Amino acid sequence: MTHTYQYPHPAVTTDVVLFTIREDSLQLLLIRRRNAPFEGRWALPGGFLDIDEDLERCAARELAEETGVTGIELEQLRTFGAVDRDPRERVISVVYFALARVENLHLRAGDDAADAGWFALRALPELAFDHDQIIRAAHERLVTELSRSKIVFQFLPETFTLEELRRVYEILVDAEIDKRNFRRYFLTQGMLEPTGQLCRRGGQRQARLYRARERDPVAHLG
Amino acid sequence: MTHTYQYPHPAVTTDVVLFTIREDSLQLLLIRRRNAPFEGRWALPGGFLDIDEDLERCAARELAEETGVTGIELEQLRTFGAVDRDPRERVISVVYFALARVENLHLRAGDDAADAGWFALRALPELAFDHDQIIRAAHERLVTELSRSKIVFQFLPETFTLEELRRVYEILVDAEIDKRNFRRYFLTQGMLEPTGQLCRRGGQRQARLYRARERDPVAHLG
Repeated sequence: MTHTYQYPHPAVTTDVVLFTIREDSLQLLLIRRRNAPFEGRWALPGGFLDIDEDLERCAARELAEETGVTGIELEQLRTFGAVDRDPRERVISVVYFALARVENLHLRAGDDAADAGWFALRALPELAFDHDQIIRAAHERLVTELSRSKIVFQFLPETFTLEELRRVYEILVDAEIDKRNFRRYFLTQGMLEPTGQLCRRGGQRQARLYRARERDPVAHLG
Repeated sequence: MTHTYQYPHPAVTTDVVLFTIREDSLQLLLIRRRNAPFEGRWALPGGFLDIDEDLERCAARELAEETGVTGIELEQLRTFGAVDRDPRERVISVVYFALARVENLHLRAGDDAADAGWFALRALPELAFDHDQIIRAAHERLVTELSRSKIVFQFLPETFTLEELRRVYEILVDAEIDKRNFRRYFLTQGMLEPTGQLCRRGGQRQARLYRARERDPVAHLG
């Protein structure tokens, strides 16, 4: 069965950038393409939107079909639509992303994916389509959101030292962070609440323990 | 000429939410639809993507054709794709937004727009499609971005008092903002730089003058 339109229509896909922290580094989930174009190349999990399917539902379905991963809360990043981004036809991709803990996540490649695996952001293989550009945009958004969301705290125990928090930030930002700037920034931001307790971890000096405090700067100005 | 595909394809549109401050209130640009569906109803400027057209280019073109407005730097908000959002067919809309000064902007309705005009966010007419939902999402994003961008300063002179800044924030957030919380927040955020000068405006007490300082919290932690 074919489908006919008066004007040319682009195809619409969704793709997913799923970040996590593994082996002390920022990693993301890729699949190896079973089919042309870019057969055998690594790519983001994703695929074509069904005509009666919600966008976010499509992203979750493709992630599940190609990697076995389910139950991740996805957020829309943005839509990529450069005219020549797919050699087959005009394809508009609505991209979703997430940062999640994956301790008990079992990968199982399927559907259009010949394989699925975690890759460090710093050591990505050659990618299909414009997926390297999509991943850079997703990482930029992740960094931006760190300063105004609580997503970072899922990688910490309920109480933690500033040094432990800084270390998680360094992994997520994928860059070194100056200790003094970090301390000054967080202690004035009001995102943290001192517990009044001290702890000694590893070879460190005794340090104050903090916990996260819910906070959204502008919304709380009223 | 018709266009045939093996699988059904959605149509893709772009829509634009253009905010400004007029008459001491947050306003946005709407057009009145010349054609069905929702003929005669107010809606966001926007329309169908040409098959060889960049997404952002489409948003700028539709804005120009329907309202005469050009030269606005548009930012992608997100894509709206609820299955039933358009009664004609499945339509995915990639939405762009901006906050801009419009002093010398002349509106000129054209193309699919029978009229174009500014409406206060607080007093919108009944809108076509899911455009009320899109506008709410755009305003939420605008509020979020205020805390980490310099877009607010385009509505202020180069030096300003905290009270002048707070008043612009109130208009943009469209809510009252507590004076003391606002003062404490901005003086610790590091977004402002004191000029060392004082001024007296209107019936106010003498107040310190500030200017904007470029700043992005997490990017500057290094």
